[in-house]
Amino acid sequence: MKKVKLGPQTLLYPMPAVLVGAQVKGKPNFMTAAWCGIAASTPPAVSVAVRPVRYTLDGMTANNTFSINVPSADLVEKVDYCGIYSGHKVDKSQIFQVGYGKLKTAPLIQECPINLECKVIHALDLSSHILFVGEIVETYVNADCLTEDKVDPAKVDPLIYSTVAREYQRLGKVVGRAWEIGKKTDVR
Amino acid sequence: MKKVKLGPQTLLYPMPAVLVGAQVKGKPNFMTAAWCGIAASTPPAVSVAVRPVRYTLDGMTANNTFSINVPSADLVEKVDYCGIYSGHKVDKSQIFQVGYGKLKTAPLIQECPINLECKVIHALDLSSHILFVGEIVETYVNADCLTEDKVDPAKVDPLIYSTVAREYQRLGKVVGRAWEIGKKTDVR
Repeated sequence: MKKVKLGPQTLLYPMPAVLVGAQVKGKPNFMTAAWCGIAASTPPAVSVAVRPVRYTLDGMTANNTFSINVPSADLVEKVDYCGIYSGHKVDKSQIFQVGYGKLKTAPLIQECPINLECKVIHALDLSSHILFVGEIVETYVNADCLTEDKVDPAKVDPLIYSTVAREYQRLGKVVGRAWEIGKKTDVR
Repeated sequence: MKKVKLGPQTLLYPMPAVLVGAQVKGKPNFMTAAWCGIAASTPPAVSVAVRPVRYTLDGMTANNTFSINVPSADLVEKVDYCGIYSGHKVDKSQIFQVGYGKLKTAPLIQECPINLECKVIHALDLSSHILFVGEIVETYVNADCLTEDKVDPAKVDPLIYSTVAREYQRLGKVVGRAWEIGKKTDVR
């Protein structure tokens, strides 16, 4: 297989397109993030990379709380809007219906099918970005995204961010069941 | 919108399904990971959560190097195999064609369309998992995954891991262009 070296690049597929929420100067603000991943299971934790210039960062550091909101594909315009325009310039507090949970200062987007309410447990300075690690203290899911009491990815209908192409995509065809398909064949 | 509280859960959509590579006792080993995300741009960095019991962790800590390999959907059986079976029990060194780059100890899967060669810059103890942050020192892409010299997500054909449902999925329909579709409408 012919390989091409591209130099150090932030190339990963897929990436999520989520909305990071924080309370800044008494109002909810949201930024779009693709650089987000689960970090641990006990306690449940999530990481998200935030540039120091981001308005959202002010709220994350002031309150030590934030939210990760998983949008459905029908919210794509609002998701992209929150990535283009900074809270330093525009007031994003009225774009969504907002609720609050036990932490009081992590704004939860009601339209998003999944909300992770987070308490900052680490803020790692990586130069261009601060990598926030948040303990997930509560998870909220829209009731209509459950099938037999379990979260149904097809009903969540999340947005995928495809880097380089700069496109948002939906989930596609199921190609196999995890912890099963690998048992079928002797792959060695 | 009726919300259901699920308690603290590691719920994020989409997650990637990548193969983490490390050199353990002189041989390449690979583990499947969904808890992986980009962490910074300068220097380019990636994070991945690894349980202390993992065989791969031995190589990551011994050499301070690892690789993130983005598989295409046709590798789904091997990807799942590497998630099910531990290097403590089976020898995974012969599953893939393996190359090495400038770090010498980060095994790069030749069949995977994208390889990130990484040097450990942080290992954050999060109790259940160690969150490794690796500086991406080189990126390798299969030549046939480029369109006009740019990485083409459709040609990469990556695997998405859908948690709870425990399914691997492919990329689906494009729903919008990032940094564009949010400009079209006054979303407020």
